[in-house]
Amino acid sequence: MAETPYPPVSFDTHPSRYVHWGLDIEGAVATLTMRVQENRGMWPGYELKLNSYDLSVDLELADAVQRLRFEHPEVRAVVVTGGYDKIFCAGANIKMLASASHAFKVNFCKFTNETRTYIEDATARSGQTWIAALNGTASGGGYELAEACAEIYLIDDGNSAVSLPEVPLLGVLPGTGGLTRLTDKRKVRRDIADVFCTKAEGFKARDAVKHNVVDGSYSRSKWADGVKARSNAAVSAAVARPADARPVTLPEVGPEVDGDTWTYRFVSVKLDRSTRVASLELRGPAEPAAASSDADAGCWAIRFYRELDDALLRLRFNELDIGLLLLRTRGDPALVLAHDSALDAPGWFNTEVRAFQARVLRRLDNMAKTLFAIVEPGNCYAGSLAEILFSVDRSYMLADEDEVNSIVLSAASTGRFPMHNGQTRLQARFPGDEGARQIAEAAASRQKAIDAGTADDMGLVTFAPDAIDWDDEVRIAVEERCSLSPDALTGMEQNLRFGGAESMENKIFGRLTAWQNWIFQRPNAVGERGALKMFGAPERAIFDYRRT
Amino acid sequence: MAETPYPPVSFDTHPSRYVHWGLDIEGAVATLTMRVQENRGMWPGYELKLNSYDLSVDLELADAVQRLRFEHPEVRAVVVTGGYDKIFCAGANIKMLASASHAFKVNFCKFTNETRTYIEDATARSGQTWIAALNGTASGGGYELAEACAEIYLIDDGNSAVSLPEVPLLGVLPGTGGLTRLTDKRKVRRDIADVFCTKAEGFKARDAVKHNVVDGSYSRSKWADGVKARSNAAVSAAVARPADARPVTLPEVGPEVDGDTWTYRFVSVKLDRSTRVASLELRGPAEPAAASSDADAGCWAIRFYRELDDALLRLRFNELDIGLLLLRTRGDPALVLAHDSALDAPGWFNTEVRAFQARVLRRLDNMAKTLFAIVEPGNCYAGSLAEILFSVDRSYMLADEDEVNSIVLSAASTGRFPMHNGQTRLQARFPGDEGARQIAEAAASRQKAIDAGTADDMGLVTFAPDAIDWDDEVRIAVEERCSLSPDALTGMEQNLRFGGAESMENKIFGRLTAWQNWIFQRPNAVGERGALKMFGAPERAIFDYRRT
Repeated sequence: MAETPYPPVSFDTHPSRYVHWGLDIEGAVATLTMRVQENRGMWPGYELKLNSYDLSVDLELADAVQRLRFEHPEVRAVVVTGGYDKIFCAGANIKMLASASHAFKVNFCKFTNETRTYIEDATARSGQTWIAALNGTASGGGYELAEACAEIYLIDDGNSAVSLPEVPLLGVLPGTGGLTRLTDKRKVRRDIADVFCTKAEGFKARDAVKHNVVDGSYSRSKWADGVKARSNAAVSAAVARPADARPVTLPEVGPEVDGDTWTYRFVSVKLDRSTRVASLELRGPAEPAAASSDADAGCWAIRFYRELDDALLRLRFNELDIGLLLLRTRGDPALVLAHDSALDAPGWFNTEVRAFQARVLRRLDNMAKTLFAIVEPGNCYAGSLAEILFSVDRSYMLADEDEVNSIVLSAASTGRFPMHNGQTRLQARFPGDEGARQIAEAAASRQKAIDAGTADDMGLVTFAPDAIDWDDEVRIAVEERCSLSPDALTGMEQNLRFGGAESMENKIFGRLTAWQNWIFQRPNAVGERGALKMFGAPERAIFDYRRT
Repeated sequence: MAETPYPPVSFDTHPSRYVHWGLDIEGAVATLTMRVQENRGMWPGYELKLNSYDLSVDLELADAVQRLRFEHPEVRAVVVTGGYDKIFCAGANIKMLASASHAFKVNFCKFTNETRTYIEDATARSGQTWIAALNGTASGGGYELAEACAEIYLIDDGNSAVSLPEVPLLGVLPGTGGLTRLTDKRKVRRDIADVFCTKAEGFKARDAVKHNVVDGSYSRSKWADGVKARSNAAVSAAVARPADARPVTLPEVGPEVDGDTWTYRFVSVKLDRSTRVASLELRGPAEPAAASSDADAGCWAIRFYRELDDALLRLRFNELDIGLLLLRTRGDPALVLAHDSALDAPGWFNTEVRAFQARVLRRLDNMAKTLFAIVEPGNCYAGSLAEILFSVDRSYMLADEDEVNSIVLSAASTGRFPMHNGQTRLQARFPGDEGARQIAEAAASRQKAIDAGTADDMGLVTFAPDAIDWDDEVRIAVEERCSLSPDALTGMEQNLRFGGAESMENKIFGRLTAWQNWIFQRPNAVGERGALKMFGAPERAIFDYRRT
């Protein structure tokens, strides 16, 4: 399969630089208008026709979701609509997908899936209700974007339709949660879902409303008023933010790059390409927490997590060869705990910061790279940073002779950071009856320094070698891990990271994605005469019809 | 990839013909001894060394699980052990896997997974507690077989170990539920699971007990007594069957095959290779139900389901080209309801029959083929057979002018047949609040003939065309379906069939399997220098280390 190289992706953007989206705010209602520029795709060779999208379009959307929460606390409803006549959005661009490498397709889907869950998170946690105003046809990823919104309205103009034509036209799945949200979120009967997902032309307004594929429709003449009424209703239903909610502005966080070293204010990344390891140093705050009433985008609690988020995305998209992240923390545990505690105070900004931190930790859970945590003296695995110990696949804690090396748990580990499946990471770590005892033991140890021996006994770390064994044990573990099949590791880690409970989000990342990845490898999709490759060509795809 | 052709698989066997297993029964304890014959594999080119298995071995195991339940109601504990010194079982044979087609690997894993869940079903529903007595090393599928047992004991001889070496040695996942059962059933901490699954040599007795990977261990001198004590304890804890429980003998059900027509007593299958459709006629009982106290393996309630089970397995393994099953029923609905009702009476045999019917319906859910039900006058979609309407992807019911065409629901749809996720099929069909109303409506209509218009209104069928449209509508739907990408359909159907709740079983079939299927396509596993291909060769596998 041809592997289209793409330029390194950068994740910093700003509404003033948006190419594909317009963001307009009027009172408590924001309107995001998708107006994709055909010729501004990420790489040459495809045109973003019919409001189809590629990663460059989704990066701006992700930025808008984030900025609305921090920079526009007054917004209570977000209307997503299309900027062209008769079309809302034709979904992910097929020629882009057909020319992309397997790895890019997988990473692209994961990122767009995360953005969709962030839209749902904004509706649920920030009281910013997202409303899809489909002013024209929404097909494939266009309809999936709508599904991520709390409400969907479709214009009833005799032509516009919603559809998921991936299976009949492209031989792949709707890869952005479309299937799962149909059944689990919109509660569409499964045989109706089967009909909808195999009917290339989809449902027009009447059938779409009947089967709950959309929430309502308006004729062309009543469209603007209808949508306005819905957004006003959402605003009325929402809890208003205090009038003096002072927005914060999110500055760029992009790193200084010096060869294979990336330096942020609180995060450093060092790539070792020969061993395929990225060493991350995560630094705690350098100064005491500010008074809790100040909303400050520069504060450690948000700046650090934004830097980590940026580093994780760059590692995913730009550093495919890196197979293992070696995570270290450095700093004063007391300061981490103080900055965490400052977020306990009520207020919209603290709510937003906590929710954002939770999203970054879920981004870490979703990495298709092995995660090892290293715990050495001078670390600050405390409070929210201790959560990283429970995100990783394994942790190594030096059992130093004088027992200086320690970690500190806090309330941050017992509910602040839900995983995709709704569990805390301690719950995911400690299953069963014995696990309940261990969680209680961990909870009882909050705010206390826990040394390596105790952490090992409590099951909080995987290994606690002494100084004599330390270097060899860590080195061999890393070397061994990096020698294994990267695909088998991705599959294994995905299965082990999400034991126990399941949820819609979890099914999207764990089940739907795995099937899509399988299909993305199959000749029926990506072979020379596969449906994805042949889309738009005069000849039909040729299938090997043997069912598997 | 080379596609090794294999001879058509037949699923009929009997303990008297077992090649690889010994079955000994002493009082309430059955002992199944695995003694695989190296040279009796399914096709040439590999030797079943070290008690490794292929489908021929697992077919016998599946037969034993089934026969113990029906033919040996006195058995309360089943001990699974190895018949060779120092080895319990080395798992699925690697050379067999390396030489098998992708489709065979997927079907093989699915069948072995089903058999493992049947072992758990026997423990849970028949009070036959399965105990793994690992008399030597159990690796890969060998350990996964043990995980399906309720208890695992490992000999502590300084050498024997349990392990899941698939990731480090073969570049694939443990594909028989190993990962999921570690976390979800055995509640192993996930970082410990990570260590266990990447450590090729596994854990010997001490570590295995410590981390709950096994339940206990005995030294060589105490081994026989220890295992005996455990099986006796299981017998004591179980509810004994009545002393007069009269076993039934399961006769062969294999069909008469005449070209592309298979004829069983109650099931006919007609293959149309040009359209890739198999038409199944499922016939209701011809005679009134016998008195409920008679245990009779020839009764319709078991004979019909055994035939359907056999047909489904043959379609899976031997008819890859068939993409769609068109299911019709024919017979007297009142007789189906009568035979169902006869199973309501208490007694071990009725319990077994009901549990078996539920397993067959789950086998139907697991088909990687599209399922359409056709409902025409003369049908007997009633009671347990009405459940098929809720297993299929779509149903078509003829709205005949005189409203003779009808279906009948019964208590069979409201709890008798749990899906893998523990839900009833009505629950899976009707999600959400509106769904609860629909389920109540369906439940209130039990025992009444429901005509096409009413069934359509109640959401019990997908389409109800009248006689004028009937032929065209069904024909076009089948033709369209059969033209689509078979891989995309498999992925879509798997996602839509299991909306809502999740469970361990569901995760094994839906999540673990999808990741494994993906890995089974990746060059790092199955390429010329992939780990699965290179296993046992002097050179090492060569990986493309880019993580996806």
